[in-house]
Amino acid sequence: MDEPVTDTGGGLVRLRMDVQYDGAGFHGWARQPALRTVQAELEQALSVVLRSDVELTVAGRTDAGVHATGQVVHVDVPAVIWAEQGPKLIRRLRGVLPSDIAVRAVTEAHPAFDARFGALARHYVYRLTDDPAGPSPLRRADTATWPRRLDAAAMDLAAGLLLGQNDFAAYCRRREGATTIRTLLRLAVARHREDDGSQTVRIDASADAFCHSMVRSLVGALLAVGEGRRPLDWPASLVSRTERSSEVPVAPAHGLTLVAVDYPPDADLAARAGVTRARRA
Amino acid sequence: MDEPVTDTGGGLVRLRMDVQYDGAGFHGWARQPALRTVQAELEQALSVVLRSDVELTVAGRTDAGVHATGQVVHVDVPAVIWAEQGPKLIRRLRGVLPSDIAVRAVTEAHPAFDARFGALARHYVYRLTDDPAGPSPLRRADTATWPRRLDAAAMDLAAGLLLGQNDFAAYCRRREGATTIRTLLRLAVARHREDDGSQTVRIDASADAFCHSMVRSLVGALLAVGEGRRPLDWPASLVSRTERSSEVPVAPAHGLTLVAVDYPPDADLAARAGVTRARRA
Repeated sequence: MDEPVTDTGGGLVRLRMDVQYDGAGFHGWARQPALRTVQAELEQALSVVLRSDVELTVAGRTDAGVHATGQVVHVDVPAVIWAEQGPKLIRRLRGVLPSDIAVRAVTEAHPAFDARFGALARHYVYRLTDDPAGPSPLRRADTATWPRRLDAAAMDLAAGLLLGQNDFAAYCRRREGATTIRTLLRLAVARHREDDGSQTVRIDASADAFCHSMVRSLVGALLAVGEGRRPLDWPASLVSRTERSSEVPVAPAHGLTLVAVDYPPDADLAARAGVTRARRA
Repeated sequence: MDEPVTDTGGGLVRLRMDVQYDGAGFHGWARQPALRTVQAELEQALSVVLRSDVELTVAGRTDAGVHATGQVVHVDVPAVIWAEQGPKLIRRLRGVLPSDIAVRAVTEAHPAFDARFGALARHYVYRLTDDPAGPSPLRRADTATWPRRLDAAAMDLAAGLLLGQNDFAAYCRRREGATTIRTLLRLAVARHREDDGSQTVRIDASADAFCHSMVRSLVGALLAVGEGRRPLDWPASLVSRTERSSEVPVAPAHGLTLVAVDYPPDADLAARAGVTRARRA
């Protein structure tokens, strides 16, 4: 007889949670001793509400100060607790979470769903303003300020030259043993006039995955082009390097927001899980 | 010979300034002893930059905690200072203003322009969420939270019954001698799904002018309808009263933003000024 597909063992169910946070008050996602982090706050709130210790797996380990409107995590919880708490879980979490974190959605996921290793693409937005009046005060938490006028069209051209599968070592803070080869699916720069009348420059960045500080380093390199300090092909010319480049500035964290993560449909997960079971057998 | 139209007398020019602020850190617009207010901060910044004491006239005297993305003020400054500072004024103000106030635009106005008495209409937006997950953390500064589900369609129907010229005494904190007759041009309620996936209920309110606490009182009355505690025609039924109604709750300040103020075109101001000069002659 086949194993039940909806049970990950030990009477657990796998939940997908869609999470949002204002990064200003956190030392990033990942738990660290004695520091306020999103992971620690969220695990603490969940353990109170579920009366059970939990460990979260996250799609994007955002740095200190970086925001999220579309972060995704998975967590395994006892099936009996989920059956009892399910419909009330979001409201109960709201009652214990601080106001700078929100759990937007909780859904039962396929047992083969993996928030980190199953993610097909991560989507980030970087917001900055070169408006002499500065950012709109109500959006200053997620809008970086640039003191000089930027050529957004030049930045967009330079961005296009970076697309595709490349070794982004020049744009990565090195982690031992981790690859720096990534597929950059989108890097687009456009000037916007916001509803409130302010001018912003918005950078949309999507990849299969980003290495540490990669989005902010790409933005930093594009800013050098936007100011006219570097030629259009300079950011792409760094791709051949095998080491982090000290010439690449890292743009401020508070302009960056993780907005979405893509996953394969459940049907694909079921097919993969079937293959895994067949191999095990 | 005619008086020069661009001179308000004494070598002064009249400036229109478009101002934005995050209301959280202010005890409202109007200057008050020993309290942090938008008017005091802005007059202080202007006096530093213009090396001249100034007094601002404002379109909407917002209450403590209320925000603005489209506040309008006028100020008279020496023509010689304006000639010298004009192109640099916004950037220099940016350098001395705190980050919760921004001066989005400064333009030389017609001498008959009056930010307060010349305003034809004020436009406010009230943002609130009844999403069980609460507001998006990055928008919690300007989104009020409502703990129970709201019927936005019922609120919109009730809102429509309040339109037109009415005595809004039931919705006004009384000020000695001030009229409470106002023309409500728009009061519309709609549910929105924001880009970040959160549900909000947005109330758009426009009038020739609003009396003290009127928008938040109208929102408070509509919330009673949205929760099903009051019938559709209850908010409009209060219009016949001549006193502030204690049954009307005042919605929290931080959901409210002044988004725009309408003025007549300069041609109309010139015509009016001409009439005034002809009468004086």
